Amino acid sequence: MTKTDIASRVYNHTWKLDPIVRSLLDTDFYKLLMLQMIWKLYPDVDATFEVINRTKTVRLADEIDEQELRDQLDYVRTLRLTKKELIWLAGNSFYGRVQMFEPEFLVWLSTLQLPEYELSKKDGQFELTFHGKWAEATLWEIPALAVINELRSRAAMRSMGFFTLDVLYARAKAKMWSKVERLRDLPGLRISDFGTRRRHSFLWQRWCVEALKEGVGSAFTGTSNVLLAMDSDLEAVGTNAHELPMVAAALARNDQELAEAPYKILQDWNTLYGGNLLIVLPDAFGTAAFLKNAPEWVADWTGFRPDSAPPVEGGEKIIEWWEKMGRDPKQKLLIFSDGLDVDAIIHTYRHFEGRVRMSFGWGTNLTNDFAGCAPTDTPGLMPISIVCKVSKANGRPAVKLSDNPRKATGEPAEVERYLRFFGSDERIEQPVRV
Amino acid sequence: MTKTDIASRVYNHTWKLDPIVRSLLDTDFYKLLMLQMIWKLYPDVDATFEVINRTKTVRLADEIDEQELRDQLDYVRTLRLTKKELIWLAGNSFYGRVQMFEPEFLVWLSTLQLPEYELSKKDGQFELTFHGKWAEATLWEIPALAVINELRSRAAMRSMGFFTLDVLYARAKAKMWSKVERLRDLPGLRISDFGTRRRHSFLWQRWCVEALKEGVGSAFTGTSNVLLAMDSDLEAVGTNAHELPMVAAALARNDQELAEAPYKILQDWNTLYGGNLLIVLPDAFGTAAFLKNAPEWVADWTGFRPDSAPPVEGGEKIIEWWEKMGRDPKQKLLIFSDGLDVDAIIHTYRHFEGRVRMSFGWGTNLTNDFAGCAPTDTPGLMPISIVCKVSKANGRPAVKLSDNPRKATGEPAEVERYLRFFGSDERIEQPVRV
Repeated sequence: MTKTDIASRVYNHTWKLDPIVRSLLDTDFYKLLMLQMIWKLYPDVDATFEVINRTKTVRLADEIDEQELRDQLDYVRTLRLTKKELIWLAGNSFYGRVQMFEPEFLVWLSTLQLPEYELSKKDGQFELTFHGKWAEATLWEIPALAVINELRSRAAMRSMGFFTLDVLYARAKAKMWSKVERLRDLPGLRISDFGTRRRHSFLWQRWCVEALKEGVGSAFTGTSNVLLAMDSDLEAVGTNAHELPMVAAALARNDQELAEAPYKILQDWNTLYGGNLLIVLPDAFGTAAFLKNAPEWVADWTGFRPDSAPPVEGGEKIIEWWEKMGRDPKQKLLIFSDGLDVDAIIHTYRHFEGRVRMSFGWGTNLTNDFAGCAPTDTPGLMPISIVCKVSKANGRPAVKLSDNPRKATGEPAEVERYLRFFGSDERIEQPVRV
Repeated sequence: MTKTDIASRVYNHTWKLDPIVRSLLDTDFYKLLMLQMIWKLYPDVDATFEVINRTKTVRLADEIDEQELRDQLDYVRTLRLTKKELIWLAGNSFYGRVQMFEPEFLVWLSTLQLPEYELSKKDGQFELTFHGKWAEATLWEIPALAVINELRSRAAMRSMGFFTLDVLYARAKAKMWSKVERLRDLPGLRISDFGTRRRHSFLWQRWCVEALKEGVGSAFTGTSNVLLAMDSDLEAVGTNAHELPMVAAALARNDQELAEAPYKILQDWNTLYGGNLLIVLPDAFGTAAFLKNAPEWVADWTGFRPDSAPPVEGGEKIIEWWEKMGRDPKQKLLIFSDGLDVDAIIHTYRHFEGRVRMSFGWGTNLTNDFAGCAPTDTPGLMPISIVCKVSKANGRPAVKLSDNPRKATGEPAEVERYLRFFGSDERIEQPVRV
């Protein structure tokens, strides 16, 4: 005789909203590190963030119901840090350091509400923007992306029966576990979860994180997801992102300041953080230009995160630069995080093995790889390349060039101006899948 | 770390319809026994059934969404007996008899689809009728009532949070178990579940049936619900209902036939069934009139089911009649089934103990007693007195008088005519709660 928990059953089928993002900590750790710096050094800067779906063939506004999107975004705006979360942020150590967050910052954070959003539809896409103080609008990036990606998954699965869903997840789990088994063969591998923003769903990300924890053991160095780190007793990982140099460049009042912006922002960072958090993200306006003009002290930083060049080529360029600067690459760290799949991880690991310290930040292909898993062809489960980028700072246009022209963002005329200014050496066009 | 079955979770929150009635066997056993007789002896009779909410203060059409009701009724019309169900009906023994159902009947039943329904709203109530061959429309009674009652429960619980629901069911379980403990004290008690039509929900009925099975052991003689009997290896119980004499009377062409109708239909019954199925339901046009005019052979039947007189008074009248007819009540069976709660069961049991065989058919107060269970006052969880009665046979009005004037159904003028014909001796007005 079948037993059913009737209360659970009734609760399940009277659900009105199943919130996707249920905590302000369901975000990437680097957002909090950057936020503290923004709060401290740039408290008066205004910023606008906008969601950009680079996979134009996917008409998001046709797949996702606008009202559902509004309901989820409205729910995010009801979130506040809970007492438990604040105590954990204050009491936990991050990257081996206690009191990473200043008490005054946490007091401010405890009252933070995400600012309003603007949402409309155009040509089958959503136009979704967030405007406010940089220190407030910046936190929208991850929940906005997670909400859109999970609403898209839900829409794709809406018509599936239980059997189909059961097979779908069974195959996805089997697929994920095969990857774990391949990664186990790499001695000394260091890999972490960077998959929050483009995850299939929160529950699936949690499953993947647990699977990695059990499957690769100490090779799994943590998750960028602060909530999962807290709940699963994992390390929260991540450092900084393009929005820092992008805003710094947008705020530059002349060519001199624009040229100095990518380095000035690193100095800002260094006033707050040290050690393993001293990771350079060099590609905002092209890695070649960054390295060419970099001051000596940049070579003293712990490592680089090449995020848009092909990993082997990008890594070699940085190693070459370290050597030119008289530094020993064996003491340095390269963090790879751009669209990695297991093949790329293994190839990159084998290529650099013994020559440099490495770490892999595994994103979309960890938390949203359902290709071939659904019993029937379901395009809505294929991940898309969607980002939420700062587009304006104090009303001035923000630009990212990237090492891959397809990942550039900003108004075309402004992108052209930046390209003339920083040059376009060694930029390599590659398909952007995720 | 919390584990969640993601497939189940996704399935749960993408539910479009959670069907209430999922099998044609989710009905009362007596409907099938009557159906076989109707199919065999009255295949050409047309009948109309209509749902009547006697609790007028509850405005059903305000509480239940009409489209949800239509969706559920439409779903019932998609149901067909499954192969497993047919094999079970053919191979199981009922009341100790094998092959209770003729092979030709089961062949016919296997293709049966319930006829269309007519649904409108008036004064806050639904007007819901079923018209077709008697042999088809009759099967609507139980699913229609179960659907309406469960939709009402669902509406009442829609705004409850998980904690509230958990407490609600915890209290209802505790309450139910207290009843079980009181019933255990009655040696030789025979009690069965008659609660399908007015149940809170299917899952709750199943829980109650399982609780009785485990709690009172052999005192629990079975369930009227055919599906639960099959799934839980219980006896399916039940005999016949008012619709038989009501249709027989409606079809009567003159006073002679009208006077004979209540007894003729019993003779029909006796051509198909015997033994413990020979149970007289005497109150369709008043028990007093029925007994006064009953032929001698009625006293040879196994027992009576007084269904609208107060149990003690009604039982005494029948015992008195048996004694007058020279029968030993100790050999006879009284089945009580009208709005029983535990107090009434115990009182009736104690009153007749040792004088007559007894059995109790426990209905609404078994499967829909949530009074005092919800953490906040929830009138929508209080059961209502709702029935689905035959209103016409071959276009002629059908009437039920009952021993309780408040349970009479039919057009007022026709009720008056029946009252003049059968008399109104010993009818006792009582409140009808369920």
